[in-house]
Amino acid sequence: MIRLDVSAAGFAADFAALVDARREADSDVARDVTAILRAVREEGDAAVRAFTEKFDGHDPDATGWRIELADCRAALDGLDPELRAALELAHDRIAAYHAKQRPEDRDEVDADGVRLGARWSAVAAAGVYVPGGRAAYPSSVLMNVVPAKVAGVERIVMVTPTPKGEVNQLVLAAAALAGVDEVWRIGGAQAVAALAYGTDRIKAVDVVTGPGNAWVAEAKRQLYGVVGIDMVAGPSEIVVVADGQNDPAWIAADLLSQAEHDPTSQSILFTDDAGFGDAVAKAVDDQIAQLATGQVARASWDANGAIVIVPTLSDAMPLVDRLAPEHLELAVGDPEPLFRAVRHAGSVFLGRYTPEAVGDYVAGPNHVLPTGRRARFASGLSVLDYMKRTSFLGLDAAALARIGPAAVTLAGAEGLPAHARSVAIRLDAPGNGAA
Amino acid sequence: MIRLDVSAAGFAADFAALVDARREADSDVARDVTAILRAVREEGDAAVRAFTEKFDGHDPDATGWRIELADCRAALDGLDPELRAALELAHDRIAAYHAKQRPEDRDEVDADGVRLGARWSAVAAAGVYVPGGRAAYPSSVLMNVVPAKVAGVERIVMVTPTPKGEVNQLVLAAAALAGVDEVWRIGGAQAVAALAYGTDRIKAVDVVTGPGNAWVAEAKRQLYGVVGIDMVAGPSEIVVVADGQNDPAWIAADLLSQAEHDPTSQSILFTDDAGFGDAVAKAVDDQIAQLATGQVARASWDANGAIVIVPTLSDAMPLVDRLAPEHLELAVGDPEPLFRAVRHAGSVFLGRYTPEAVGDYVAGPNHVLPTGRRARFASGLSVLDYMKRTSFLGLDAAALARIGPAAVTLAGAEGLPAHARSVAIRLDAPGNGAA
Repeated sequence: MIRLDVSAAGFAADFAALVDARREADSDVARDVTAILRAVREEGDAAVRAFTEKFDGHDPDATGWRIELADCRAALDGLDPELRAALELAHDRIAAYHAKQRPEDRDEVDADGVRLGARWSAVAAAGVYVPGGRAAYPSSVLMNVVPAKVAGVERIVMVTPTPKGEVNQLVLAAAALAGVDEVWRIGGAQAVAALAYGTDRIKAVDVVTGPGNAWVAEAKRQLYGVVGIDMVAGPSEIVVVADGQNDPAWIAADLLSQAEHDPTSQSILFTDDAGFGDAVAKAVDDQIAQLATGQVARASWDANGAIVIVPTLSDAMPLVDRLAPEHLELAVGDPEPLFRAVRHAGSVFLGRYTPEAVGDYVAGPNHVLPTGRRARFASGLSVLDYMKRTSFLGLDAAALARIGPAAVTLAGAEGLPAHARSVAIRLDAPGNGAA
Repeated sequence: MIRLDVSAAGFAADFAALVDARREADSDVARDVTAILRAVREEGDAAVRAFTEKFDGHDPDATGWRIELADCRAALDGLDPELRAALELAHDRIAAYHAKQRPEDRDEVDADGVRLGARWSAVAAAGVYVPGGRAAYPSSVLMNVVPAKVAGVERIVMVTPTPKGEVNQLVLAAAALAGVDEVWRIGGAQAVAALAYGTDRIKAVDVVTGPGNAWVAEAKRQLYGVVGIDMVAGPSEIVVVADGQNDPAWIAADLLSQAEHDPTSQSILFTDDAGFGDAVAKAVDDQIAQLATGQVARASWDANGAIVIVPTLSDAMPLVDRLAPEHLELAVGDPEPLFRAVRHAGSVFLGRYTPEAVGDYVAGPNHVLPTGRRARFASGLSVLDYMKRTSFLGLDAAALARIGPAAVTLAGAEGLPAHARSVAIRLDAPGNGAA
């Protein structure tokens, strides 16, 4: 953890280093992934099988390529009732929030008589990547599948690695609850390639979303354009802006809720109260000692944690904007003035009773959010990621007579005579009422 | 040009070949681009200067890195009045169509007392690539810059190569009309890299859009994630569905309006009237002979053109959906029944008096559209490409008491104790009104 003070000499350079620090994959990963994608594209299922044996330690020809939907249903039915109720609450709240993201179609005729519109439709098939092992999260299944369902995608295909063949019952339960159509027992870059290119066994999809390790993220990046993807995801991060009126233990818990994800995660506190900052630092140390995930949290906090002292919390906001954080908590009594100053952030958590983790599970907005300063240009996962828009227009002879001549002029100026002719030939036609 | 008939033996395989035909860049381009991006990232302006000398044949230190806005203004003022009026009509109609794309913010409190919302904001800076030489189109300037303006982007940076130092006055005029803030005299992958990474001279942007050759498209693809991009663009294409009641010369003109772009462009006609198909083929040959762009159009039509005979036009629609064309004309008297059957298309042109070219210039919808079957998952350029959404939520103690316990349960099940604690610590707090 580093401590920075806006009023200290060298702050500008130290803060710039924090903003520019790279915590992402290197070019070795890119090379490995390129080779895996090529193999799956050329050899299909045989390559997927070989990589699964190599990386996941099981042969899908023996363990089974698919997990049956009946097994998912059984996992859901077998859940502890409290856990099932929690999963259902999460599902219903996520569905309610995302239902309001469905875009409206347009269809109107303007003053020149030109019919103009846009019509949205769902993609036909979506692939959802769900990590295996430690990072197998049922909440991620809901956050990816529910928006696809709301969009109207007919075929939702889940891939999830099962290291040594072992499946995660919670993930299967979430798949059943959310309504996944196919589940394949594969993972890594090879699974993303199979979804994008298609194989004899697995029909290609149109969009691939979902979290994964550096190989999965790189595979999605390289396959962007072959399929649609949600975003290039990096390590998770949280920025907390807090005054001295907070309980230091609460804020420490929030910082640790990111730090426990991965050693590359990042947690940053901005406060106008240096004494409070010290108290939070102490509370972080105290809580880490009690955490089952303490080793990961310690590594993250030591390497990437920061406490930044600012003269007033308003002074923090331009700095926060430069970080463009995935998660931003405004832990103050009245968060509105600070919130108005936020421009670049994935998701904002307002007030003292809105810990980021409530948004990870049950609040409703998506927890798949832009990381690594990408909130400057990217948004969280939404229904729009599983839909596309077709624009349309319709002219009659009179409307074409009004705006067509300008198209002829511009096409001529651009040196595209066939463009010009395709309009002009209709303007000159006998029977063109406006001629 | 190939002729296919749905009722002929071998149609399925022939049509599948048409759908799967690749007309895109090879891996040599990818390797070259990777090297260029690395050089610009490491050496900045010096690399940009060297590549500009090599590829564009001028030294920007001598010819000038920037084109002054005053020069753009002068180019606009110097336009022929008819051309200026056409450009202004295009600008105003594009602005009017895109203004209605601005998304609405959300901010509401649900039945559990949870405040939920989403707030849209513009990216701070957008880079727009404008090709030089033959493909320097003022219409592309408008189609990229106007949506960014409508979104509220404060800094719009245009890059355009000036082969041998020569600038295109029409492009500068369009830049002035649309309100570009900076114009740089650079192009190719090196210009895209400069926009994405930033250099000493050129401040980095958040989003890069705009058409370009295979190197530019590949540079955008590789830089996706460092910046936002519009789409991976490939060769242009048109599908025309036409009955025998059309004038063959009109439909031939429409097919040629794509073919004249580039030898890799593609034009496909579906018709239920084999005699009409023959008449169109003859009209294409007749018109090519008269076109200044005839050589390019000939190459495109010969290599990639197709006429497909279907029993009824309804039978064409599932085939069209497999092609997911960038442009789709429905040249029939009443296009509505066919239009209802369209799912995957970039833009649809309805009826006999709506040639695709009218949409390229003056109708209003964007002419930057998904190519190469990407309309299955991608949309045309829009105001949304220059904006991003920040979700937010706010709970008080009572709301957290209602939904927080489910978050604690789920975090526990996922093995994330710090997530659970950050919620639980607030539920247990004295003074929590709902405890």
